[in-house]
Amino acid sequence: MSYNTIHINPISPDPVQGSVLVIYTGGTLGMVYESKGKQLVPFNFDQIIEKVPEISRLSFGITFLSLKEPIDSSNVNPAIWIELAQIIETNYTYYDSFVILHGTDTMAYTASALSYLLENLDKPVILTGAQLPIGVARSDARENFITALELAAAMDDDRKPILSEVCIYFNSQLLRGNRSKKQESSDFNAFHSENYPYLANAGVQIEYNYPYLKPREENAQLKVHTQMDTNVAFIKMFPGINQKVVESILGIEGLRGVVLETYGAGNATTDRWFLDAIKTAIESGIVIFNVSQCEGGKVIQGHYQTSKFLKQVGVVSGSDITAEAAITKMMYVFSKENEIEKCAALLGKPLRGEMSV
Amino acid sequence: MSYNTIHINPISPDPVQGSVLVIYTGGTLGMVYESKGKQLVPFNFDQIIEKVPEISRLSFGITFLSLKEPIDSSNVNPAIWIELAQIIETNYTYYDSFVILHGTDTMAYTASALSYLLENLDKPVILTGAQLPIGVARSDARENFITALELAAAMDDDRKPILSEVCIYFNSQLLRGNRSKKQESSDFNAFHSENYPYLANAGVQIEYNYPYLKPREENAQLKVHTQMDTNVAFIKMFPGINQKVVESILGIEGLRGVVLETYGAGNATTDRWFLDAIKTAIESGIVIFNVSQCEGGKVIQGHYQTSKFLKQVGVVSGSDITAEAAITKMMYVFSKENEIEKCAALLGKPLRGEMSV
Amino acid sequence: MSYNTIHINPISPDPVQGSVLVIYTGGTLGMVYESKGKQLVPFNFDQIIEKVPEISRLSFGITFLSLKEPIDSSNVNPAIWIELAQIIETNYTYYDSFVILHGTDTMAYTASALSYLLENLDKPVILTGAQLPIGVARSDARENFITALELAAAMDDDRKPILSEVCIYFNSQLLRGNRSKKQESSDFNAFHSENYPYLANAGVQIEYNYPYLKPREENAQLKVHTQMDTNVAFIKMFPGINQKVVESILGIEGLRGVVLETYGAGNATTDRWFLDAIKTAIESGIVIFNVSQCEGGKVIQGHYQTSKFLKQVGVVSGSDITAEAAITKMMYVFSKENEIEKCAALLGKPLRGEMSV
Amino acid sequence: MSYNTIHINPISPDPVQGSVLVIYTGGTLGMVYESKGKQLVPFNFDQIIEKVPEISRLSFGITFLSLKEPIDSSNVNPAIWIELAQIIETNYTYYDSFVILHGTDTMAYTASALSYLLENLDKPVILTGAQLPIGVARSDARENFITALELAAAMDDDRKPILSEVCIYFNSQLLRGNRSKKQESSDFNAFHSENYPYLANAGVQIEYNYPYLKPREENAQLKVHTQMDTNVAFIKMFPGINQKVVESILGIEGLRGVVLETYGAGNATTDRWFLDAIKTAIESGIVIFNVSQCEGGKVIQGHYQTSKFLKQVGVVSGSDITAEAAITKMMYVFSKENEIEKCAALLGKPLRGEMSV
Repeated sequence: MSYNTIHINPISPDPVQGSVLVIYTGGTLGMVYESKGKQLVPFNFDQIIEKVPEISRLSFGITFLSLKEPIDSSNVNPAIWIELAQIIETNYTYYDSFVILHGTDTMAYTASALSYLLENLDKPVILTGAQLPIGVARSDARENFITALELAAAMDDDRKPILSEVCIYFNSQLLRGNRSKKQESSDFNAFHSENYPYLANAGVQIEYNYPYLKPREENAQLKVHTQMDTNVAFIKMFPGINQKVVESILGIEGLRGVVLETYGAGNATTDRWFLDAIKTAIESGIVIFNVSQCEGGKVIQGHYQTSKFLKQVGVVSGSDITAEAAITKMMYVFSKENEIEKCAALLGKPLRGEMSV
Repeated sequence: MSYNTIHINPISPDPVQGSVLVIYTGGTLGMVYESKGKQLVPFNFDQIIEKVPEISRLSFGITFLSLKEPIDSSNVNPAIWIELAQIIETNYTYYDSFVILHGTDTMAYTASALSYLLENLDKPVILTGAQLPIGVARSDARENFITALELAAAMDDDRKPILSEVCIYFNSQLLRGNRSKKQESSDFNAFHSENYPYLANAGVQIEYNYPYLKPREENAQLKVHTQMDTNVAFIKMFPGINQKVVESILGIEGLRGVVLETYGAGNATTDRWFLDAIKTAIESGIVIFNVSQCEGGKVIQGHYQTSKFLKQVGVVSGSDITAEAAITKMMYVFSKENEIEKCAALLGKPLRGEMSV
Repeated sequence: MSYNTIHINPISPDPVQGSVLVIYTGGTLGMVYESKGKQLVPFNFDQIIEKVPEISRLSFGITFLSLKEPIDSSNVNPAIWIELAQIIETNYTYYDSFVILHGTDTMAYTASALSYLLENLDKPVILTGAQLPIGVARSDARENFITALELAAAMDDDRKPILSEVCIYFNSQLLRGNRSKKQESSDFNAFHSENYPYLANAGVQIEYNYPYLKPREENAQLKVHTQMDTNVAFIKMFPGINQKVVESILGIEGLRGVVLETYGAGNATTDRWFLDAIKTAIESGIVIFNVSQCEGGKVIQGHYQTSKFLKQVGVVSGSDITAEAAITKMMYVFSKENEIEKCAALLGKPLRGEMSV
Repeated sequence: MSYNTIHINPISPDPVQGSVLVIYTGGTLGMVYESKGKQLVPFNFDQIIEKVPEISRLSFGITFLSLKEPIDSSNVNPAIWIELAQIIETNYTYYDSFVILHGTDTMAYTASALSYLLENLDKPVILTGAQLPIGVARSDARENFITALELAAAMDDDRKPILSEVCIYFNSQLLRGNRSKKQESSDFNAFHSENYPYLANAGVQIEYNYPYLKPREENAQLKVHTQMDTNVAFIKMFPGINQKVVESILGIEGLRGVVLETYGAGNATTDRWFLDAIKTAIESGIVIFNVSQCEGGKVIQGHYQTSKFLKQVGVVSGSDITAEAAITKMMYVFSKENEIEKCAALLGKPLRGEMSV
């Protein structure tokens, strides 16, 4: 492997804790001050023990690996997701778990995408980051990083990882990755999961919400996908939305699908021109995925008159999926299937626990 | 006036409570069962006392007025907003306050729009609605309706209304209208205001959060605006967003502005093609308004590298404005001003308490 | 039976909904204005349809029964609990479920007590009440009452009640009764359950939190207990607590047990005189039950030095029990058992889901 | 002064930040592992830079001072409070602000007590601590400590401290000390202030809630009190409370006051024996202070029948005070005044912002 790596506590991990591969992608967490200056720059692994000396007290082995070019998470894109999935595939048999250090801005998108790309995952992949850099005095970086490591290393009585899904850990809470959303840009309490309970809470003890963890699939064989089709777009409903806006988006060359951000339980205007535009788009092979602008609750197409037509013309209900999990699900599904019916069928059912039935 | 009206408790209101004009626009709250059937239909004012007998116990005068054609709030549009503003203008001297019964789906958009259309407002305009119809047994409609009436009628010691702004009342909380968002499609607790505190809490007593109420402007003269320019669109950032998508939207004929839904504190990709597209759009006279996908926190352009360029090319920071208040603010501002610089200046500062400085 | 009763919708209940017995004990919910005056008085059943006309729309049979003398919940006492348990016993085979209208002040105590008195319960007993009377315009009484009825009547596919435990319903949430606490005296959102999740949430739909419902015990035979021993007291720790205070309470004639309200995870001062007083009390046959002053988290005796001694001398850990469930559990246990060891053993383990192991 | 002290960053503090005196009393925060062993022991100041190297990056002067004997906070008592008040008095002119490291268990009691003992305070006194020791890997200690330091050092444009009251900082929130309560024994989010808003929130920025800060009193002269009278007790109401319990407590020799923990808005049983006992106690010179068992809301004596008598016989309403602030207020007031009427008058009004009028 061509990545730079560094090993910490390498010898004989505690039998009740697994070995962890940490993948650094960039982002606020890893920023430190230049040795002489006041400029924040991505940290160098050689500094990890100096910045977070507590790591050497942990009783399990940790290996660090950095993306060739650390990037700000605003620049994350499907190629990075595929690279991450491939790193995990390459290292899957050598480690018990994976921690990804990632900027907060697009962390929910990346966690969602990875949940699709890593089929049959049965080891934890925990994303974390920070609102303030590890290199400044007041920071949430250390606590988020160390707790993510401890969660990743946690084993049950059979010496299997307790977790076996893509998660986000942030500010004391472990959330299912494809249920998460960055909801606060300034608070340390940045991530929420409005439609699915937290998976664990880290206080004096770490307490797992066992009924809501993904059950481990025995004998599952990890299958890594490496394609994402980005011929997708959002259309967000608003009163006064203009016919030209809707038609321009639906007319984009090569477009395969649209996440339609509707009102409430999946409602949209019943203006003739709008319904016609949606109908025409579906007939031309574009999948329309109905996702609510509300954080909480779910799309129930047909409940109100204003969503009945959407159902009739074949709009796919997104139930309680997030916008982040919806747009990435489209990219994944479109890379698997060509026919609109098959795509619609996959979109409409949960693939990785990302939506409720 | 050509609207149908009905008067309740018309004689000699309690001197410490004002008279209220209730405007029914449609929506879930007002749905009742047909006399014989199982179909929910908009209620008839003659039924109001029968459905909510408590109203006749209130000690202030109430007049009901209905839009000519009650509509589901998914079909609300700028013409309705202007009609509402004009009804308030016409009746402004005859009532102390206004309650608008409105569907929940677009209530935050309507409240935002009305806040702009009603300049120098110094009487309360309270929107409310319900998640379940007034005609079914289990419902939040009665409580929301009656409390909104009591809030509207509340006077201070000078016999002036305590409130003087456009608000949303829902599930025990009074919120500033242009700070609100429908965040839950299923819970009774549907509306949140993440970046501004509640204005009042209704429990055993109604408690006002006085430091956060809009101060009443003495000698202000209500000025009603009656235009909204809908040449606006949303572009929501996501990793993998496609050049064709961005360019198609920015290229829509007649487009005057875009609400760019960015990551975190106002960040977007720094891909060359993206920055060029934004720059070209601004140069061609399109205003770009930077609003975060996060509910909480604010856009601080220039804080990170990934928002620095946006600032340089003239993207306007939306600070902590909601998407609902942003898109309606654009419609309002564009109807007032033609020059891009003047529009940008108005967008970038608070006009009705809708954003922090 | 000597109670006055009234029957509503008596004929052929909907096969998917059970019949409900409503027991009115008094409290704010049932207060109405005297026909001519301004005085609030307990309502008369003949008025129920007039005050809550929605009840006649419900599709299941409801029978009302009132305590001989409705009382303010501040005056509730163990005799009332026993009377309620006996009413349920008498009517157990005739109804599918029970709703108790109760003042909010002591509702959590009553719910806890009933959970102990009703052993092997397999039908719902739902307590509800209100912060404002049903007879005033603005009130939470109607919504709480009607939703409690619907929850009580809810059946699963086998035509068995979904719930089979003592619960509190209040302000959209159904909580386990012996996990609840009145935490707000003014907000409508009055009850919390800090250490156990909600059982159901009532919004547009009623959503059950199935993993956390008490499983129904098949073939369980209801066993009603009718004794409570009130030789119990609280001692609340505080810095500076006086030796005379502690010794006076522990020296009360006939005292059998004390709920010791400790700090944090079950800590108390290690002052010699205090430890001696506790030790002497236990040796003289008084049970000391360690319950935290914190709402959330649990007593873990021995975790810190300051709780180690308590464990050594035989103080019983209350884990995450509430003060309300603890004091009533003592009354119940002391009426069953005489020996301190047996009492301690029963106190230290969950009897009705009131504490975690 | 006979305390051991250590100075950090002593030279020329940043003119916009004040100098801070840190007083270590003991508690979880300061625990570290013995150099060779696995036992947690209170840390030694010489280790502070090693454990929290970020401190040396702060741009203001910090002086550390330790109580002669660090103690677990369960053993805190009025003598410690007086020692703390005296340390602050001695050092008042030499430092701009004070941070007290304290165990969490009794921190709310200590903060309340100090607010009374430090009359006319116009500099910040910030208490903080941690749920997990600074010496273990996963811990909230570093973040709480550093942020408390930054809050203490924060100056306004006039180079005066922004804060001028006794506060608790914990888990991103700054609370008024005598409004705080330890509500969670296990979560990092341990302290709540249910009846008063937070004073500041620490996220990416520190945001102050200015309307709710105590205004700085110009020309106020600090007056330190050094007496606390511990002839006080709690009586907690519960259904079935036994006459012997109440009478034993009220009959304790030398008792001067009781915090009566009532139901809801200040209600208690109206049983004859209970009311007589209260009346007799008041006539014999014991002050009864009515404080609710509910976290939120306030005592309103006379609102219900069940609190009317309490008012009539002279029970003092505690409004929305916490139990912690109430019991310490009694200790303070009794050390100032002998006459019951004067004590009652002081208890019934806010002295340090600890209750609402």
